[in-house]
Amino acid sequence: MILTVTLNAALDLTYRVPHLVPHASHRVREVTERPGGKGLNVARVLGALGFRTTVTGFAGGETGRTLRTLLAADGAGAGRAADGDRGSGTAAGSAGTGGETAAVTDALVEVAGPTRRTVGVVDESTGDTTQLNEPGPHISPEEWERFLTAYRGLLEQDVEAVALCGSLPPGVPVGAYATLVREARTAGIPALLDTSGEPLRRGLAARPDLVKPNADELAGITGTAEPLRAARAAQRRGARAVAASLGADGMLLVTQDGAWSAAVPERLAGNPTGAGDSAVAGLLSGLAEGLPWPERLARAVALSAATVRAPVAGEFDEQTYARMLPSVRVRGAETP
Amino acid sequence: MILTVTLNAALDLTYRVPHLVPHASHRVREVTERPGGKGLNVARVLGALGFRTTVTGFAGGETGRTLRTLLAADGAGAGRAADGDRGSGTAAGSAGTGGETAAVTDALVEVAGPTRRTVGVVDESTGDTTQLNEPGPHISPEEWERFLTAYRGLLEQDVEAVALCGSLPPGVPVGAYATLVREARTAGIPALLDTSGEPLRRGLAARPDLVKPNADELAGITGTAEPLRAARAAQRRGARAVAASLGADGMLLVTQDGAWSAAVPERLAGNPTGAGDSAVAGLLSGLAEGLPWPERLARAVALSAATVRAPVAGEFDEQTYARMLPSVRVRGAETP
Repeated sequence: MILTVTLNAALDLTYRVPHLVPHASHRVREVTERPGGKGLNVARVLGALGFRTTVTGFAGGETGRTLRTLLAADGAGAGRAADGDRGSGTAAGSAGTGGETAAVTDALVEVAGPTRRTVGVVDESTGDTTQLNEPGPHISPEEWERFLTAYRGLLEQDVEAVALCGSLPPGVPVGAYATLVREARTAGIPALLDTSGEPLRRGLAARPDLVKPNADELAGITGTAEPLRAARAAQRRGARAVAASLGADGMLLVTQDGAWSAAVPERLAGNPTGAGDSAVAGLLSGLAEGLPWPERLARAVALSAATVRAPVAGEFDEQTYARMLPSVRVRGAETP
Repeated sequence: MILTVTLNAALDLTYRVPHLVPHASHRVREVTERPGGKGLNVARVLGALGFRTTVTGFAGGETGRTLRTLLAADGAGAGRAADGDRGSGTAAGSAGTGGETAAVTDALVEVAGPTRRTVGVVDESTGDTTQLNEPGPHISPEEWERFLTAYRGLLEQDVEAVALCGSLPPGVPVGAYATLVREARTAGIPALLDTSGEPLRRGLAARPDLVKPNADELAGITGTAEPLRAARAAQRRGARAVAASLGADGMLLVTQDGAWSAAVPERLAGNPTGAGDSAVAGLLSGLAEGLPWPERLARAVALSAATVRAPVAGEFDEQTYARMLPSVRVRGAETP
């Protein structure tokens, strides 16, 4: 299975209001709740592609309970859709573009502090979203140790790849991802790191197999705004490979075997929320299947585009994905 | 005791952000959670004044559980502060400006749907608040019947007054407050109604002892913007007495014994959130003690002012209250 780590999981709330006016009072027309945080989003996309995925990280309080209930409900739906596939553990049961939805297994670690909420306020008059993200619960040293024990236990299972995703809640050491990357390497499991700022900088030094910053995050840690130059700089700092998401310009991938860029042939209007998480899912799924790098990149770009086009933020549109995948243009990238 | 009814109770979240920018992403610096909805706010103020109060209405889901946990924690604090006062049931134990804090008793009725959240986003650069209010759970006909049974049971206890507060959640009949006012009258208990729109219009016809609209709500149901004229119109529609809150201009009270207006002698800067609920608490506490109308009005105006001045929205500042109460100017109001 594929393991995703979300240390600062969230209960994502979406509020739809006719028109957002600062300093006014609004009746919310529609409320939706779902499990959130990058690693949980990645797992949902992997599940939709038919890959068995396990999620870990922290959950606590009533918000954590709601998150886990929603996660189990998603899984129950997936189970009904794909009973024959569950737990098969075969290559056919694991690989799955176009296959049946697979359940996401909950291996979150219970903590005392409540799981954070994020609130996305959608202004229906413009379609724009105003985002409010709570900081997350304080994690005690004992809780962090408990997580490390659980993580080591998971790495002893049949893990094909691990994704380490998102921000750190208060109390978790800033070098947390470096520790988790090293543990994965000790277990012989490829690790993908998708975070930003100091946790990314520290994580790089532990030599993850792949990092997936966006252009801003990459510039922030390397001091270089030109993507290819910055990706090479991130490699020198420790990453074996760098997949940089460049928004509407697609993605740039720099590995030890070569460098490629890829984009879809058309500009797509839509909501970019979750497009980066779908790209991570595409890269991981290609890694789990042992695809060559350019094919992993094509999958990541097509899934990103299909997420921008989906009516619900963070979901991906399967028809757009099927249509985009063969049309993604992958080109060799020159060193400037 | 005093009974307050909050059919659409809420878990009130306050988010502090450095500066609110529509369509941007924000890290929330500080999150506070507390029990909300008008009747729960009224009960908190009454408790702080030393009055034994019971709250009823609906609570459900994880948000309802959090609300009840917070309510119990408030009560535990009050219990420690005022053990000698609790449950005494005497006039001395009940009356209490300046007395010890009394516990609030939870008599909320469990429902299947989750209690709504409200989110107040405080922009620290301006101090202004942007408010987002969820609609609330759908209440089934069976749940409404269950509430009516519980309400009738509470009215058989030693209830000095009942306050019916706030909006109706989906599924509750629009004539709900009319029903609750009639039940109170049958039980011989004075009823105060604080709501708006059609539920207020319908509730008036059931002849509540007192309604507390603000100027806009009063104009909305009577079609008259001039407060005294509008209050008289509300009386003709069924209210025995009308207390209209006029913001910085204080309050206007029209009863069968006379009409008065009252205001504090100085303009107070601060946050008006909850000032109306504090006014209701002032009116109820005066009713419970059998004070003459002008003294009830003075108490309501001083509590409102002390709420505007409190550092936390919806709390009241005890020192401001003690200072304001003797300085409130109550005048007879002339019919225009």
